[in-house]
Amino acid sequence: MNPEKTEYDPKTFNGITFHNVTPAFADGSDTPSAYLERCLKTVEVREPVVQAFANLNEKTARVAGEESTKRWKAGSPLSAIDGMPVGIKDLLETKDMPTQMGCKAFEGNFPKNDNAAVLALRQAGAIIFGKTVTAELGGNHPGLTTNPFDHARTPGGSSSGSAAAVASGMMPAALGTQVGGSIIRPAAYCGNFALKPSQGGINRGERQTTSMSTHGVHAASIEDMWQVAIEIASRVGGDPGYPGLMGPTKTPSSLRPERLIILQTEGWVQLDDSSIAAFEQLMERLERKGITLLRRSQHTWIESLESHIANARNVCSMITAWENRWYQRNLVDRDPDGVSERIKGTLEKAETMTPEDYQALLLKRDNVRTVYASLSSLADAIITLACPGPAPFWGGDVLGQPSAPWPTGDPVFNYPSSMIGAPVVTVPMMAVNHMPLGAQIMGQRGEDAKITSLARWVYENIEPTVTR
Amino acid sequence: MNPEKTEYDPKTFNGITFHNVTPAFADGSDTPSAYLERCLKTVEVREPVVQAFANLNEKTARVAGEESTKRWKAGSPLSAIDGMPVGIKDLLETKDMPTQMGCKAFEGNFPKNDNAAVLALRQAGAIIFGKTVTAELGGNHPGLTTNPFDHARTPGGSSSGSAAAVASGMMPAALGTQVGGSIIRPAAYCGNFALKPSQGGINRGERQTTSMSTHGVHAASIEDMWQVAIEIASRVGGDPGYPGLMGPTKTPSSLRPERLIILQTEGWVQLDDSSIAAFEQLMERLERKGITLLRRSQHTWIESLESHIANARNVCSMITAWENRWYQRNLVDRDPDGVSERIKGTLEKAETMTPEDYQALLLKRDNVRTVYASLSSLADAIITLACPGPAPFWGGDVLGQPSAPWPTGDPVFNYPSSMIGAPVVTVPMMAVNHMPLGAQIMGQRGEDAKITSLARWVYENIEPTVTR
Repeated sequence: MNPEKTEYDPKTFNGITFHNVTPAFADGSDTPSAYLERCLKTVEVREPVVQAFANLNEKTARVAGEESTKRWKAGSPLSAIDGMPVGIKDLLETKDMPTQMGCKAFEGNFPKNDNAAVLALRQAGAIIFGKTVTAELGGNHPGLTTNPFDHARTPGGSSSGSAAAVASGMMPAALGTQVGGSIIRPAAYCGNFALKPSQGGINRGERQTTSMSTHGVHAASIEDMWQVAIEIASRVGGDPGYPGLMGPTKTPSSLRPERLIILQTEGWVQLDDSSIAAFEQLMERLERKGITLLRRSQHTWIESLESHIANARNVCSMITAWENRWYQRNLVDRDPDGVSERIKGTLEKAETMTPEDYQALLLKRDNVRTVYASLSSLADAIITLACPGPAPFWGGDVLGQPSAPWPTGDPVFNYPSSMIGAPVVTVPMMAVNHMPLGAQIMGQRGEDAKITSLARWVYENIEPTVTR
Repeated sequence: MNPEKTEYDPKTFNGITFHNVTPAFADGSDTPSAYLERCLKTVEVREPVVQAFANLNEKTARVAGEESTKRWKAGSPLSAIDGMPVGIKDLLETKDMPTQMGCKAFEGNFPKNDNAAVLALRQAGAIIFGKTVTAELGGNHPGLTTNPFDHARTPGGSSSGSAAAVASGMMPAALGTQVGGSIIRPAAYCGNFALKPSQGGINRGERQTTSMSTHGVHAASIEDMWQVAIEIASRVGGDPGYPGLMGPTKTPSSLRPERLIILQTEGWVQLDDSSIAAFEQLMERLERKGITLLRRSQHTWIESLESHIANARNVCSMITAWENRWYQRNLVDRDPDGVSERIKGTLEKAETMTPEDYQALLLKRDNVRTVYASLSSLADAIITLACPGPAPFWGGDVLGQPSAPWPTGDPVFNYPSSMIGAPVVTVPMMAVNHMPLGAQIMGQRGEDAKITSLARWVYENIEPTVTR
């Protein structure tokens, strides 16, 4: 295997899964410790090129693996994910590893707390495997992680390390977070499944200062994706004031959609022909299975939604810039050299805003949410691309030139769900030029389990498409 | 003056105000520096007994005073509160003073950030005067502050120092925070005005992890109260996702209520006769001015609201306990001796809860909000006591006996507005046994300016009542 490049084919690609090995834990033919060692072996092979980790605590992971092994032997695992190695995006606090947020100003930051979701994972017996690289402060100034299928390309971001670690088989699942497109997009670039829950679905613990960010799960299978999410939510619930993710305690069974809305978003116009072809072939395959597809030209309600989200990028970016303003102003005052020019540029824009500007953006967001909710009876869900083509190449900023705008890829297909607070599942259904290209299925708020069922049906019943 | 005890009479009591001295700043007959020195002189006299401060930074305050003096001299003050000394509850981060939260585990904690509201105050030219004592972590384990009118009584909490510093004339205004009753109640015990805004009204900055807490303002006059609140909101807005406090840039003029609902709450049954008499006399005086009062016996809608809030204490306490659970678990794990038994007791209860318990509480809260909103056309606002009688005596826990349940007084009259997210103004309209007893006026969400107008009318047109 050339560690720099692997040809991705969604028909044959198999990531590392966990849900299907637990029977072997139960009958003693395999153990969590052995599973963990297999993961660590993959890390040894792949990590030098992929660079998914900000921190790896093999020692505590092995201790946790031994404890899990004992529980499975005793027939008393703590949950369906007892013994599962899970990566934690380095924005989230962990009591046994530093939390450096991909930001120089946080080098050595070690608050010795567990984020609520991390605490839940430990209570479920999962193995906190390591801290995965995040773009700086969850923005778009990239870390060192590369795309497992092509070292010269970005894995996406800001959940870069979580996406790449899962895609390279280092672990079956990892936590990410999304404000704009930080879960859905890297998953789409890396051939993962991912769940970005309804806003408020998973308790963000100490990370509550923005109004449209969520914790979510990357996984190599839809089963592991759901299981991790529900095990967390069943222990620590959702964000304060939210009921949190609800649904079956095991991955919901597949559900055939009757009708799907195809959403274009403001990203459609920038798509390359191969990506359009891959997506349209996928749509044809859905239609051949008898699923009705609704396009914007066919229904004024869809056209209305499209026009309401036509400016989603700007609305989302400015809302988040305003919400991060105080935090970033303190940071820049404290440590001017500790943050990137990208963050400083965002802060500069945010500091031109007034509360009235922010109120106007919230009103736009509310209007989109109203229009979106009114579509609920029109179809079972929405389907669209999860990213604007395969992962772009990224070789670093060029000295003396302005910063590249989207070094971790463009979240243009992800703003609408973030803006609406709607749940989304990324499904690895396409390849373009041997690189993954994900589709996304998006539901109404609270329909996390339903879209998981729909995504499962699509994945299990539709042949993926491959274009060059 | 006996520093241990002062007889309070709402008819004659005058606190220290700021809004009426700025004309003298403008014409040069007074200066912010001189005003500050008068405040510091009062601190020198009163602080040894009142103990309102966790930290006092006279040096930076004097520098800020000199800068403000220059601006007023140059005819270019930054705002109507330029030069106003403002106390900051020690839960909120300040870059020039430690933030110790009344909690041993945070001794020496000095994050060197400014809370969003503090940053706004500095931008408006206010003088960050000192950090005021908070009950531990904003709960009810008290600090050392005493009631300025009777050293043997509590000032209320958790915004203990802010309430007491304003009431003893050390400063014209101070920031507090409320989850259960931490702004409204101490204000009522100390004879202050206070605004607890609609949920989300003032940007809480780093303090976003509970779903029903607000920043608010204590002041010795309704003018200073409003001015501080609106100067903050006009710079940093509300919480993420909220439009924030809106209203006139100067204190709204007084507005005569036509109809007021008298709410009893679950606190009514525990009132002493003198407090009931003081309140009922106040109601008579309102009626004599032609204001219609609506009582629970007269209207099924009011009775419905009363029955929906009959369990507000339990709902609020358990919601907040759940929301603080992860934070407190980390804290206790990290520093078991650094927190009080009161916090540990709350955590213990929270850890018996499941996400389903929390969901059930949210549903109850939502139902109350619906019932409350339906009352909007019935009257202009609600009026009730802001605390269950005058401030209780507090001499400390007795060794070997269980912790007293409400050492800073009982928030029983404050839970409904917290639960609903409704705005409230405390008005100092009564005295019982020479101690202050506040009334509160409560509006619909977003009606912060309206209830300020109503409260102003009541204060300016109704003679306070005094009972023994």
